[in-house]
Amino acid sequence: MPEINFALIGHKFMGKAHSNALRQVRRFIPGKLVPRLKVICGSACTEDLQTAARKFGWEEYSCDWRSVVERKDIDVVDISTPGHLHHDIALAAAAAGKHIICEKPLANSLQEATEMVRAVEKAGVKHMVNFSYRRVPAVAWAKKLIEDGRLGRIYHYYGAYLQDWVMEPNFPLVWRLQRKYAGSGALSDIGSHTTDLALFLNGHITSVVGQLTTFIKHRPLVARMIGGGFKAIGGRRKGRVTVDDDANYLAQFSNGSVGVFQTSRFARGRRNCNIFQIYGSKGSLAFNIENMNELELYDQTETMGEQGFKRIIVSEDIHPYCAPWWPPGHFLGYEHTFIHAIQDFLTSLEKDRMAEPDFYQGQKTQAVLDAVERSIKSKTWESPKV
Amino acid sequence: MPEINFALIGHKFMGKAHSNALRQVRRFIPGKLVPRLKVICGSACTEDLQTAARKFGWEEYSCDWRSVVERKDIDVVDISTPGHLHHDIALAAAAAGKHIICEKPLANSLQEATEMVRAVEKAGVKHMVNFSYRRVPAVAWAKKLIEDGRLGRIYHYYGAYLQDWVMEPNFPLVWRLQRKYAGSGALSDIGSHTTDLALFLNGHITSVVGQLTTFIKHRPLVARMIGGGFKAIGGRRKGRVTVDDDANYLAQFSNGSVGVFQTSRFARGRRNCNIFQIYGSKGSLAFNIENMNELELYDQTETMGEQGFKRIIVSEDIHPYCAPWWPPGHFLGYEHTFIHAIQDFLTSLEKDRMAEPDFYQGQKTQAVLDAVERSIKSKTWESPKV
Amino acid sequence: MPEINFALIGHKFMGKAHSNALRQVRRFIPGKLVPRLKVICGSACTEDLQTAARKFGWEEYSCDWRSVVERKDIDVVDISTPGHLHHDIALAAAAAGKHIICEKPLANSLQEATEMVRAVEKAGVKHMVNFSYRRVPAVAWAKKLIEDGRLGRIYHYYGAYLQDWVMEPNFPLVWRLQRKYAGSGALSDIGSHTTDLALFLNGHITSVVGQLTTFIKHRPLVARMIGGGFKAIGGRRKGRVTVDDDANYLAQFSNGSVGVFQTSRFARGRRNCNIFQIYGSKGSLAFNIENMNELELYDQTETMGEQGFKRIIVSEDIHPYCAPWWPPGHFLGYEHTFIHAIQDFLTSLEKDRMAEPDFYQGQKTQAVLDAVERSIKSKTWESPKV
Amino acid sequence: MPEINFALIGHKFMGKAHSNALRQVRRFIPGKLVPRLKVICGSACTEDLQTAARKFGWEEYSCDWRSVVERKDIDVVDISTPGHLHHDIALAAAAAGKHIICEKPLANSLQEATEMVRAVEKAGVKHMVNFSYRRVPAVAWAKKLIEDGRLGRIYHYYGAYLQDWVMEPNFPLVWRLQRKYAGSGALSDIGSHTTDLALFLNGHITSVVGQLTTFIKHRPLVARMIGGGFKAIGGRRKGRVTVDDDANYLAQFSNGSVGVFQTSRFARGRRNCNIFQIYGSKGSLAFNIENMNELELYDQTETMGEQGFKRIIVSEDIHPYCAPWWPPGHFLGYEHTFIHAIQDFLTSLEKDRMAEPDFYQGQKTQAVLDAVERSIKSKTWESPKV
Repeated sequence: MPEINFALIGHKFMGKAHSNALRQVRRFIPGKLVPRLKVICGSACTEDLQTAARKFGWEEYSCDWRSVVERKDIDVVDISTPGHLHHDIALAAAAAGKHIICEKPLANSLQEATEMVRAVEKAGVKHMVNFSYRRVPAVAWAKKLIEDGRLGRIYHYYGAYLQDWVMEPNFPLVWRLQRKYAGSGALSDIGSHTTDLALFLNGHITSVVGQLTTFIKHRPLVARMIGGGFKAIGGRRKGRVTVDDDANYLAQFSNGSVGVFQTSRFARGRRNCNIFQIYGSKGSLAFNIENMNELELYDQTETMGEQGFKRIIVSEDIHPYCAPWWPPGHFLGYEHTFIHAIQDFLTSLEKDRMAEPDFYQGQKTQAVLDAVERSIKSKTWESPKV
Repeated sequence: MPEINFALIGHKFMGKAHSNALRQVRRFIPGKLVPRLKVICGSACTEDLQTAARKFGWEEYSCDWRSVVERKDIDVVDISTPGHLHHDIALAAAAAGKHIICEKPLANSLQEATEMVRAVEKAGVKHMVNFSYRRVPAVAWAKKLIEDGRLGRIYHYYGAYLQDWVMEPNFPLVWRLQRKYAGSGALSDIGSHTTDLALFLNGHITSVVGQLTTFIKHRPLVARMIGGGFKAIGGRRKGRVTVDDDANYLAQFSNGSVGVFQTSRFARGRRNCNIFQIYGSKGSLAFNIENMNELELYDQTETMGEQGFKRIIVSEDIHPYCAPWWPPGHFLGYEHTFIHAIQDFLTSLEKDRMAEPDFYQGQKTQAVLDAVERSIKSKTWESPKV
Repeated sequence: MPEINFALIGHKFMGKAHSNALRQVRRFIPGKLVPRLKVICGSACTEDLQTAARKFGWEEYSCDWRSVVERKDIDVVDISTPGHLHHDIALAAAAAGKHIICEKPLANSLQEATEMVRAVEKAGVKHMVNFSYRRVPAVAWAKKLIEDGRLGRIYHYYGAYLQDWVMEPNFPLVWRLQRKYAGSGALSDIGSHTTDLALFLNGHITSVVGQLTTFIKHRPLVARMIGGGFKAIGGRRKGRVTVDDDANYLAQFSNGSVGVFQTSRFARGRRNCNIFQIYGSKGSLAFNIENMNELELYDQTETMGEQGFKRIIVSEDIHPYCAPWWPPGHFLGYEHTFIHAIQDFLTSLEKDRMAEPDFYQGQKTQAVLDAVERSIKSKTWESPKV
Repeated sequence: MPEINFALIGHKFMGKAHSNALRQVRRFIPGKLVPRLKVICGSACTEDLQTAARKFGWEEYSCDWRSVVERKDIDVVDISTPGHLHHDIALAAAAAGKHIICEKPLANSLQEATEMVRAVEKAGVKHMVNFSYRRVPAVAWAKKLIEDGRLGRIYHYYGAYLQDWVMEPNFPLVWRLQRKYAGSGALSDIGSHTTDLALFLNGHITSVVGQLTTFIKHRPLVARMIGGGFKAIGGRRKGRVTVDDDANYLAQFSNGSVGVFQTSRFARGRRNCNIFQIYGSKGSLAFNIENMNELELYDQTETMGEQGFKRIIVSEDIHPYCAPWWPPGHFLGYEHTFIHAIQDFLTSLEKDRMAEPDFYQGQKTQAVLDAVERSIKSKTWESPKV
């Protein structure tokens, strides 16, 4: 079977998830193209990188991504770095004619995203931005039900993503809390997921007004986890948090429906709670990642007295992505969404079509986040500029 | 035991609930003052009114509320009419020196609410606006936990109230869909509940920006329920819906926390879903009226690995309002919130103090709704003018 | 409207619930016959009895039930006493030609139950045993769905009733813990509910094998609640617990299905958790009193991929018992089941037919409990002797 | 790092799960010993076997397990076949001095299990039976809480395992429905899981009485899935179902607590629902595999009014097995339990100690199942003979 050579830039949380996906995809899911884990890149030639390469199953490692993306034996560049590097790597990879997978959000600004779109367009390569939650079977099934018209006309969309990992005042100033690396905070990190799902499931957003809040404005540069909390180390030096802790916005969709979006890193007890609820004339859907193998469906056309939210366990062969895995009721987890993403990307190469969401769609999400940020300054409704 | 003579204006849904509360309160809850169901008023001397009087247990009925509120033998005027009558009845009742219970929302506009506040202030009477959900034991228990500091500093407040009773296009143009009677739609009807709970649990709101939407703009003047839907009758005549179907707003609280408020009458499957979630530095609370005898508490100070949302069944003797009823785990329902309101109002008379929420608090809620409406016109953030 | 004069024997927990039901039924539910709260009886002429009479709304009180049940002006005798008195009161009432409502379980033994059946049969009066959970709208709706064949052939029935109110070793030796007053423990108190629901929903039981356990064998004769626990008072005197704390049994139904029954007063955290799950060839039902306004329905005939347990909020006008109350989604509580029981009993008088469950059905439940007790002694399967 | 050579017997459902576990364990979980996927065996040299070998990552395949288990280069024999082969393979492997992992249940009879125990004892090899649900982090956490005494004295244990995959009358007579291959039906397949968890969490069972039922007694020898159902093919030939569809039992534990066990393959809508609830003097635990990353804890020692079942999301670093995976709230699935089993087995080799559950424990579970089967014949309580 033809092999597709991957270079992965990034070897931390996302690097681990992508590596696993590349290793696992063909163990479970048939397909003509087989990924080969050629080279993994880090920003420095540390022991960490070396360990990651071995543990994650890569043939080589490198701390010079620029040379790697130009290597002839590389077919796909998979960008799993912090956000500030997406743009440069993507442009270099596109220039070298490589297909590109890029972690979400596509970029740290709409400007960057637009340049990335132009680059891949010009290069004629395949591109995908990895909004992995689209690949939860329950979410893909929601998409199918909506496309089948099961909800009728959509009136109201609610998307929420709640976490609590940065709530301790001594939680350190990691890259995700710095504008220069992360673009924005809750907005780009988890708000981008919520926004992407909304665009995926409910279409174009025409206008937004938002609210961004930073509750804890200075944090230790270095801290260590002690018991359940954090202790600043390395003196009392603190740095400024330059992103939002909490980001909410109201939206108008082009289909006439309204949107309420709520994201926060300050929601105690919500470790990783990604929710959507969609209300239409004929029915409704509700999803919560805390029960990721379930989708709730309400169908107004059912017999009176028997209507109600139905908890569908999305694990049947008929459900998207499920058949190659385990019998019904034997559940998938977080990492499987990445495997499904690689599956879809390989299929896009095989069939010579674009996988979803592509950079155009990543750019649209970026445009919504950009409009939210503009609405903070203008204090009024703003329209996404894509 | 001394009797307190009540006049009730209104004999429909709310009239039924208030009558029941007046009849039941002393059957279960001890207290010095006993309500006497003296006279019930309707807008016309129909057979309906007569039937209501008999069925609900009133001694007399009248279709002239103006004379009733002036009767010497009336101690309390209980206003359970549509919103457009609250103001005039309250002013008349205050002028006659009567204590006043008024259904929520206090008025149809901030202007009206302010005049009502002035009237009761001048009259020196007791006054209460009946935001009944404050009297769900689980909600009162939430208040207690917050006051005890169990949540620490509050960061994020989410309030939602979702219904679906007007979704059929042929649902008729009832008074709640007309501005002249109802003031506004989802905003004043259910948004007022959500706002009152937020002010109750999380304090003053300093600024809001909102979104009001009317999905179905014309409706039959008369319609009849057929099967699960509605059929217009009396020709094709339709009238204009002059209120919102869906009302959402973002808010800033004076304690530094943010608020996301979502209310809709177009949420299929949510018959009457009143939710709040409050996230603080030390803990969180979650409530959903669909499980009205439960409160979820997350406590960050618990042992690591044992933290989680705890489903407290709020029905113990120690819980607010519960002791006079049934053993733990034997549940209360919707109507009990009204009984608790009457209980608190009678106590306020007995102890010569004000029951909560009083007209001042009702006015504050009105001011928030007013700011939301202004933010629609100005397309920017507005501050409540109280 | 014709009045029906009631005598109520018992003025504690059940007396309170029955009194409320008698007062409330015609406030909400139309009907030709109106109950009149004539006389309430207690075992002694205490102040408690006098207070109960006044608070619960009775015209008279008496501590001589024998003379009361013979009074000409009494139409219905409502037995709400501990179990050991049911038999004698019922026989006296039947002999006096009174209609009878009897709290569950019908009697303390099958022998007693059989005599009670003979007595009412001979007297030709109306009789009902108050298994109140049949009157939860969600339970009545379950019955309707089963009768409509929605579950197909039933294979498996699971009934559980879990409580935790006697777990403290110092909880005192109340009448429910003594065989002479209560017949048995968890088995007759809560197991009778579970058994009645099973007979109601799934038909005749042909054979059982059970397990009865008493975890705490001696308890203080008198104790007082202190904080969350109990403290023995009046010296160290303890008495023997003569009933079971925990009662489980396996069953065979005449329709070929199997039953698993689980009841315990030693299930920490389950204040009052009454559950059933019924599995059939075409579908399944699940109910839990902790969400008493909900019924879960699984329908195998639905489209593949869309099957799942559906949470029906049983509060629509179309649902049993619901129409006279509040709008959909505005919930009923524990006490309403008693009101529905009185409603059904009054209807049975009006229509001259028998209300369900009648004494025959109460006797059948008793026969199952009796077979469970025999199976403890014989250590093998036993058949109910009715 | 030292490699441990594995031979895997079985290449279907369990073979797939074990292969994945062997491949994945060292990608995530550090350890000195690394499994090498040497040879996979099937009962015949089919193309299926060949495909499985390639897809699952095995170096070789063989259809002669007898010669494989004697190969010098094999360190561990992993038995993932239907139950009737466990005994012979285990005896051969033990005789050859191989360490053994055996899928659950250990054997098809207590006799077989006892012989297997003797064989591994004599051989002095390491052995483990793969009751994988012990390795759900939430279950391992439950064990920890119980060992820490958090539940106090245990009174009541409820275990249930409900499925619905064989309910269609035309579902074919697969090996799991035949006594000669499977030993028994629901009892050994899912009842063994439930029993193992009970022994793990609550200790020794002293006595049981049970009920085994076969609802559909004849089934097509061959059938094909058509739409949502099955169609018999190859004529009307049917074979006899020789195992139970539904198996329930009551139990007595040596710690004085009682057990209610319920397993069925005829529970519509329960695809794979493995539940336990444990009630003790100080607290309770509840688990449902449908929310496999959650454990519910009730703690009676908490403040009055704040007690309740707490939904702990078991995905923190502090929780068993979780640290090497993903951040809190990013969930594991079914397959991870197998990875954890391999992890523990490799550790047992490394540390020269026995992994749990070993064959002794597998034998104990078998003894309980054996006692249940005897109780069917004797119609009375029986004690496990180990």
